[in-house]
Amino acid sequence: MAVGFKGLPALHAVVGVRIGVAEAAIRKLNRRDLVVFELAPDSVVAAVFTRNAFCAAPVVVAKRHLQETSPRYWVVNTGNANAGTGARGMNDANGTCLALANLTGCRADQVLPFSTGVIGEPLPLDRLVAGLPAALANLSEQGWDAAAHGIMTTDTVPKGATRQRVIAGRTVTVTGIAKGSGMIRPDMATMLSYLATDAPVTQSALQAMLRNAVNKSFNRITVDGDTSTNDACVLVATGKAGGVVINSITSPDYIALAEAVDSLCLELAQAVVRDGEGATKFISVQVEGGRNDGECEMVAYAIAHSPLVKTALFASDPNWGRILAAVGRAGVPELDLDAVVIHVDDVCIVRQGGRAADYAEAKGQAVFARPEITISVNLARGAARTTVWTCDFSYDYVRINAEYRS
Amino acid sequence: MAVGFKGLPALHAVVGVRIGVAEAAIRKLNRRDLVVFELAPDSVVAAVFTRNAFCAAPVVVAKRHLQETSPRYWVVNTGNANAGTGARGMNDANGTCLALANLTGCRADQVLPFSTGVIGEPLPLDRLVAGLPAALANLSEQGWDAAAHGIMTTDTVPKGATRQRVIAGRTVTVTGIAKGSGMIRPDMATMLSYLATDAPVTQSALQAMLRNAVNKSFNRITVDGDTSTNDACVLVATGKAGGVVINSITSPDYIALAEAVDSLCLELAQAVVRDGEGATKFISVQVEGGRNDGECEMVAYAIAHSPLVKTALFASDPNWGRILAAVGRAGVPELDLDAVVIHVDDVCIVRQGGRAADYAEAKGQAVFARPEITISVNLARGAARTTVWTCDFSYDYVRINAEYRS
Repeated sequence: MAVGFKGLPALHAVVGVRIGVAEAAIRKLNRRDLVVFELAPDSVVAAVFTRNAFCAAPVVVAKRHLQETSPRYWVVNTGNANAGTGARGMNDANGTCLALANLTGCRADQVLPFSTGVIGEPLPLDRLVAGLPAALANLSEQGWDAAAHGIMTTDTVPKGATRQRVIAGRTVTVTGIAKGSGMIRPDMATMLSYLATDAPVTQSALQAMLRNAVNKSFNRITVDGDTSTNDACVLVATGKAGGVVINSITSPDYIALAEAVDSLCLELAQAVVRDGEGATKFISVQVEGGRNDGECEMVAYAIAHSPLVKTALFASDPNWGRILAAVGRAGVPELDLDAVVIHVDDVCIVRQGGRAADYAEAKGQAVFARPEITISVNLARGAARTTVWTCDFSYDYVRINAEYRS
Repeated sequence: MAVGFKGLPALHAVVGVRIGVAEAAIRKLNRRDLVVFELAPDSVVAAVFTRNAFCAAPVVVAKRHLQETSPRYWVVNTGNANAGTGARGMNDANGTCLALANLTGCRADQVLPFSTGVIGEPLPLDRLVAGLPAALANLSEQGWDAAAHGIMTTDTVPKGATRQRVIAGRTVTVTGIAKGSGMIRPDMATMLSYLATDAPVTQSALQAMLRNAVNKSFNRITVDGDTSTNDACVLVATGKAGGVVINSITSPDYIALAEAVDSLCLELAQAVVRDGEGATKFISVQVEGGRNDGECEMVAYAIAHSPLVKTALFASDPNWGRILAAVGRAGVPELDLDAVVIHVDDVCIVRQGGRAADYAEAKGQAVFARPEITISVNLARGAARTTVWTCDFSYDYVRINAEYRS
């Protein structure tokens, strides 16, 4: 069970977005594995995709379609990632779009395809296509909850979040769902997120808003340092809330909406880490006092990726030497070791190059026993700061990833 | 037990190097934990140390002493790393050198200190000093075997290698020992290696020889991507074999000796990986066809560090999608995915962006079941190539690193 999971909240509908879910038996019988999002005409879509050079066929097709026109449909299947599938994979991704276009009367390039699941096996296009009518038949603005379940693979819990804000006198909704468990287990646990708002926004402003939100959320989480071939995060703005179109990234309306999108993405990204493969603890790594963001990130990821730190967190062992060693190997130039201060929650563990004078093992032990822990590092050489989120590294991580694909 | 371990070979003595070993109860009773190397006068020493900014007190002292004079003694304790110990740690490292100097009549700066073991706890200098007379009392050219045991911490087997070559008509010996299990577990398993030859070599030529050998061996192995605060590799040349002093890195004698040192370092480095924490398999990752060494290394380490690849290797699961995804996220610019070819041993698994046409799961399964596996990636864009070595990632890695320090 995900760390600190309190159940899927009631997700506000977004006017202009209808969602249909079906059981298409892509990989397993009797589970929801096909989700269709229908976007109102004149909706605007922003998207961010994996930076993995081996991106999957649906990612290639989705990127191309976004360059050609504005999407009317998103279609997501689980059970098969359609990645590492060569020319056939491209045909299958295009075939998915064509089939949905034929059923709905839109053009094929107005469909964005997404796939998640086993890598390197042919997509069962016939079964996917056969499932589309059932998904279209239950299109509804109330479909978010079902969709949050329908996009899960190895996730142990569904992930969704919702916000409402009053912007320029109108109530605006932002709702989103995500899946992912392991960042990222390429064969079964791609990170996908689908977000929608009824606010009116231009495409360029929406893209800036999404890119910025992702950089502060989904790009700041790590479970195991691996990056999927299929990662994607998309945001649609339907404009159905009415009002003046947001087109400037400095306008008060943009800033108000961006705050909601940022906060939504952060909640969803943290939900992915809380449901990380084998996770028993949720860890925030804060680095401050850096000369620039880059060196803060180097230190934060050196800690967050360290198997030694992560196994110590799993064991509730306040093994501060491993944190100190990770800071030391992060590659910060001319780091003054004696100035570095490290805390776990409110307990100072390292000062002046060694164990803090007032540190006691019992204090560290008490913090490390908690399910949610913040590791703070002050580099004491500047004003930059960053935070990343991760989880611990348990027997179950090995078990989940060592199990034969089945 | 280390993968493929065949027992410690008979290690040739190196004239001019005597070794003494004692039980000093640094951390545990009744185990060898203190080793002294005595180097003949006029010996030449080369050294390579950790790049971790948080280097331990003995590393700081050893580096300083190397700049001041040529060493007559190396002293190694296990059980305590004297790292993260602040000003007291520096005093203890200096105190170790001073005590040995007083007993032997050399200067304190002619001693190089090395420590490995628990991080962040004060070095029990009194017990270390009390053990020195016993170590000096059994100094012997035959001490290599005892020393290989005496420097172990969490190692499951001792590690040593030896070579003899005829260079310019004289038989020259190169012998070395190493310890390390996990690259690197900062609190208990620093990588240390002590090498000696009786060939005559100038300091600058010896340093070049060691640096080059380390770059192709100890710097090409990874167990978990972590780097210790205490890593060190030292090589002494006593000159006792006689003959013309080797002073040019292009001379035939240099090249002949360097081949022996390279081969010795490679055997020791691979022995560390074979004894990696929880290792059940020994993995070679070969990347060829790169535009330059840098991009070959990026791809090799992306594979060798991937917890997903390493857990699949542990499970004997030919999950080639994880290897493909690691290649994709390595960051090689403008990588032509369709040109990349991946083999495991002699079985081609990836070609033209997907599973090789003639690949069958049974073929991959047969390779992944082996205790020693080579993963080969051809980037097909240049002539550069590199190899790194790693091990798999097992339940025992988590168990070993999650156990409370005791």
